[in-house]
Amino acid sequence: MIVIVKPQATAEQREQLLRRIRELGLQPMVSNGSERTVVGLIGDERLIAEGMLESLPAVEQVMPILKPYKLVSREFKASDSIVEVRGIPFGGKQIQVIAGPCSVETPEQMRQAAAAVQAAGCRLMRGGAFKPRTSPYTFQGVGDEGLDFFRDAADAFNLPIVTELMDVRKIDLFLEKRVDVIQIGTRNMQNFDLLKEVGRLEVPIILKRGMSATVKEWLMAAEYIAAHGNHRIIFAERGIRSFETSYRNILDVTAIPFLKKETHLPVIVDPSHAGGKAWLVPALAKAAIAAGADGLLIESHPCPEEAWCDADQALSPEQLKILMADLRKLAEAIGREL
Amino acid sequence: MIVIVKPQATAEQREQLLRRIRELGLQPMVSNGSERTVVGLIGDERLIAEGMLESLPAVEQVMPILKPYKLVSREFKASDSIVEVRGIPFGGKQIQVIAGPCSVETPEQMRQAAAAVQAAGCRLMRGGAFKPRTSPYTFQGVGDEGLDFFRDAADAFNLPIVTELMDVRKIDLFLEKRVDVIQIGTRNMQNFDLLKEVGRLEVPIILKRGMSATVKEWLMAAEYIAAHGNHRIIFAERGIRSFETSYRNILDVTAIPFLKKETHLPVIVDPSHAGGKAWLVPALAKAAIAAGADGLLIESHPCPEEAWCDADQALSPEQLKILMADLRKLAEAIGREL
Amino acid sequence: MIVIVKPQATAEQREQLLRRIRELGLQPMVSNGSERTVVGLIGDERLIAEGMLESLPAVEQVMPILKPYKLVSREFKASDSIVEVRGIPFGGKQIQVIAGPCSVETPEQMRQAAAAVQAAGCRLMRGGAFKPRTSPYTFQGVGDEGLDFFRDAADAFNLPIVTELMDVRKIDLFLEKRVDVIQIGTRNMQNFDLLKEVGRLEVPIILKRGMSATVKEWLMAAEYIAAHGNHRIIFAERGIRSFETSYRNILDVTAIPFLKKETHLPVIVDPSHAGGKAWLVPALAKAAIAAGADGLLIESHPCPEEAWCDADQALSPEQLKILMADLRKLAEAIGREL
Amino acid sequence: MIVIVKPQATAEQREQLLRRIRELGLQPMVSNGSERTVVGLIGDERLIAEGMLESLPAVEQVMPILKPYKLVSREFKASDSIVEVRGIPFGGKQIQVIAGPCSVETPEQMRQAAAAVQAAGCRLMRGGAFKPRTSPYTFQGVGDEGLDFFRDAADAFNLPIVTELMDVRKIDLFLEKRVDVIQIGTRNMQNFDLLKEVGRLEVPIILKRGMSATVKEWLMAAEYIAAHGNHRIIFAERGIRSFETSYRNILDVTAIPFLKKETHLPVIVDPSHAGGKAWLVPALAKAAIAAGADGLLIESHPCPEEAWCDADQALSPEQLKILMADLRKLAEAIGREL
Repeated sequence: MIVIVKPQATAEQREQLLRRIRELGLQPMVSNGSERTVVGLIGDERLIAEGMLESLPAVEQVMPILKPYKLVSREFKASDSIVEVRGIPFGGKQIQVIAGPCSVETPEQMRQAAAAVQAAGCRLMRGGAFKPRTSPYTFQGVGDEGLDFFRDAADAFNLPIVTELMDVRKIDLFLEKRVDVIQIGTRNMQNFDLLKEVGRLEVPIILKRGMSATVKEWLMAAEYIAAHGNHRIIFAERGIRSFETSYRNILDVTAIPFLKKETHLPVIVDPSHAGGKAWLVPALAKAAIAAGADGLLIESHPCPEEAWCDADQALSPEQLKILMADLRKLAEAIGREL
Repeated sequence: MIVIVKPQATAEQREQLLRRIRELGLQPMVSNGSERTVVGLIGDERLIAEGMLESLPAVEQVMPILKPYKLVSREFKASDSIVEVRGIPFGGKQIQVIAGPCSVETPEQMRQAAAAVQAAGCRLMRGGAFKPRTSPYTFQGVGDEGLDFFRDAADAFNLPIVTELMDVRKIDLFLEKRVDVIQIGTRNMQNFDLLKEVGRLEVPIILKRGMSATVKEWLMAAEYIAAHGNHRIIFAERGIRSFETSYRNILDVTAIPFLKKETHLPVIVDPSHAGGKAWLVPALAKAAIAAGADGLLIESHPCPEEAWCDADQALSPEQLKILMADLRKLAEAIGREL
Repeated sequence: MIVIVKPQATAEQREQLLRRIRELGLQPMVSNGSERTVVGLIGDERLIAEGMLESLPAVEQVMPILKPYKLVSREFKASDSIVEVRGIPFGGKQIQVIAGPCSVETPEQMRQAAAAVQAAGCRLMRGGAFKPRTSPYTFQGVGDEGLDFFRDAADAFNLPIVTELMDVRKIDLFLEKRVDVIQIGTRNMQNFDLLKEVGRLEVPIILKRGMSATVKEWLMAAEYIAAHGNHRIIFAERGIRSFETSYRNILDVTAIPFLKKETHLPVIVDPSHAGGKAWLVPALAKAAIAAGADGLLIESHPCPEEAWCDADQALSPEQLKILMADLRKLAEAIGREL
Repeated sequence: MIVIVKPQATAEQREQLLRRIRELGLQPMVSNGSERTVVGLIGDERLIAEGMLESLPAVEQVMPILKPYKLVSREFKASDSIVEVRGIPFGGKQIQVIAGPCSVETPEQMRQAAAAVQAAGCRLMRGGAFKPRTSPYTFQGVGDEGLDFFRDAADAFNLPIVTELMDVRKIDLFLEKRVDVIQIGTRNMQNFDLLKEVGRLEVPIILKRGMSATVKEWLMAAEYIAAHGNHRIIFAERGIRSFETSYRNILDVTAIPFLKKETHLPVIVDPSHAGGKAWLVPALAKAAIAAGADGLLIESHPCPEEAWCDADQALSPEQLKILMADLRKLAEAIGREL
């Protein structure tokens, strides 16, 4: 950590700064430049919370040098981590596509959905029994029994299931239903109590990026899970909020190579929520894979027009099959496999 | 709701659109323009979730006409709602300032803080026992016993208390400690399970705006609380995220008059989190009041330099006193009182 | 255009609205819904400027139905337009990569740069003689004679040249030096006088997206050029501004398929400015091509470490060669060629 | 400037970094921490362009210490600068309100507008003869003769005039018509050729903030003008772009105290463009003054409903008069005068 001292700071204020640094268990190293005095801090700067030194009258600016995340960083572990879900690897040469409907509706819909997911060559299935909806007046998800519909349909096709957890009180139910991957949604990326709880489990976690979370905040949210013991974390970019109104979100494709450099953990992309329209999904899915993503999370439905939620962003079984074929060629061209 | 039909849509696709609209319980009204056909929907469009019609091949665009919020809207109730907290009115002529430290630290710190809050003329006190922190390695709040420290200190000065609830499992504790106002923080604005639970209480709720929530989403979050029975809601603008890096957030001062037009509920502002620096608080506090805010939520600390969190944004007792005097003059100039 | 009438509007105010619509040369069509009255406007709504009807007391909201752009839209021309630069097609099956340094420095540097561009298999060369720099104290470009260095170096390798025009007073110079493609930079996307002037030329134009321009504004900027007679326009996405601070800009990869649907004109991408770091360029370049871009604009330098500007984002000759080989495989996998 | 060295950098790469720093005319000072080596640079870091050092293999991050702006900074001049326009001071105790129509339409409209501006107690008048419009198909301004209409109307009421310059080729015309204050619009904040030219004049300049310009970029744009000789600069905040769609822009009220701290130059606010709706103007105008703005730029029109552009954001003569009375009380309450 480096502290820039205000040019007009008095000798007393400068002394107070050095004293405070020592109180916090670090060693100050002063260098006097022609226009500014700069103080370097020797020791573990992660102990100093934001704002602690800025409040002193001598301080103009505080600049951290170390990254605030540790366990999830490449510095902690240089080689890629593989997160396995019932033997299916995330983060290796093979790319994983998780497909399925936005929401669990009926046993029959889930059976058809699972059949289509498997037929297209996807190895895992997604679906939500509890839905975070902007309006209290729209469909809120089927609820507890939805997990049964999902579990049964997926088991019939031997697909591990991925589903979103929003409420700490549902964790026991998720464990009982043997949910294979727990998804933490975009609105809960900084629900720290939820992060701490899933940090105590052994189930792999897909951590979606908050709608306007910086990559640093996202890495810190993962650090919460890792710090509580669960290192089986998969990052999922799902589009960020911007000034653009022509499409729902901006897929932040730059986050893919950036994350792959900063963390050893796998990174996947949700092109369905990023674009918000089924017709945008193929282009975004290809871009994600070309940029280095380890997998995709795609909404598909046996009959998109009749879907109970997000009807305009689900792929039909036929569209999913075509996309998978296109992605297979792309994966080969970049030295990976689907 | 108005549906714009794609110019190239076939007769069959157009027929499917009209059929679907009727299935959803609404009546379509077709008007053929020179370049576009437009279909108006007669009935309660709030029943139609986003995406439901967009997925049909005939549809170019769907434009809602009605506002998605109801109970919190001015159309539902034209006159200003007053939310009372132990006899102290929010939303009337009198402006309320809630002050206090970012986090509860010790009984002594809280006692000093409460004394300063009362001495400055503020009528309510804030403080957090549970803190949402970006890093798992920094101070996470004193926890349960913090509420006792807070309650005792505030009672000694007869100040109602405002504190943040992050976890549904803590509701019973909050009720037991007679928390006077429950704050829903920026990271939980769309924690819908939490909103539903506080919607079942009778305690007044301060609903902070999500870091990048639109005003519509914010109103819809309030609608969740109201729809579950609790109409005692106070909106709190606390700055939004932008591209600007010179200060922590952008105080969205425009949201104040906009909200006052859209909703009958009170609107307050948190200049401390908006600016992120103590020296910015007076200017932002004044701007908020001048723009029509019904109150403020201000961080103050007996000794800011020693605060355990957000040290650089808390006002000292002296600074709080000066600000209150300035705000008093300002309130008078715009026909209100402090 | 559809006008939503305020529920509380008086009969007189409603009458005034209908009168005003007729004055503007359009026909109003009124439909009375249960909660709102809606007025459809028959005629060319493009004649009505934003704000004209909103100012009337009866009006709650005005919703345009038609798109504001015409000549550049897919509705105007359904098939892809090919923009040819000395026989090299943009917008067809073949993907074009334009490479070269950020700024023209010396004749020798440009000769080496041109050699590397050609050796890597790129068909056009970029370089700036006039540089828009944030600081008045940094290098502002070599100026007029830079165009000579560039022209000579490019001619030696038979490469058409692409260079940025910032000042209307330099147009004659650009014509005299036979600049093959004029680039309008991100800061000038809405420099309407400049757009009008290049609209009168026959030279192909690369129109970069403004740093925070919506796709609609960008299409309208192109419409300015087209409306003045020049239809040889190539869109160039170069990253947009967001809240993220870990990288310079966000490459808006979603804009690629969206633009390809809205306009018949070619779309290329500048991964160098989008990412701001050389190590991000390969991933972003691949993502752009996978998403359907018709070409790329890449910064390369004979010796990046010694570049006079943007040294950290230029590829070395070797890196450019490797990237071109990778892109060739990718192009084939998606049915195109490089 | 401080350079953080990559932990894995080789001795040779570290040596290259130190050599390069010396080549650039600065002295490196190395400090070896437990986790990172840090190099401080002694000398004028403003000579080093962004990216120059980042391109070296040893460099992890480069952090500037000095501010990139000089002449416009408080460090250069500690006391407030007063910019006088024909004897009217900007930046002192007195607050200045500049009012008038968006665009010059007819001599009669300008005469009425000027009468209303003076009657309300405003001391300067605004109006545009050349309008930057998003669409090439809407009204582009009256053009050259508009300046005559404006000049004549303003002279009749002894009001100095403020008008926007978009094209360097119009500077002679502006001088000939004795324009009192030249406005550089939001789309031209980084039109560096234009900034250089107005930097050579003696006319006061109102420099509007770019739609998504950071405060630092804005200060640097002013530095361009100052570096070319013209120090008579007034900053004008006019709202920035965000994700919010309920109103046109976000008035960045935080920029006011921040700028007042960073620069000695006056700061005014344009609440009309910030809000985009006449009914929002009073609240925003008051917020701006309360936050410390030195003046306002307000759109007013003799008959807003008939305005040729931005009809929905202009105040009527009556509304302007009421606002001025309210602002007068507010100004007094904060120790200033109107």
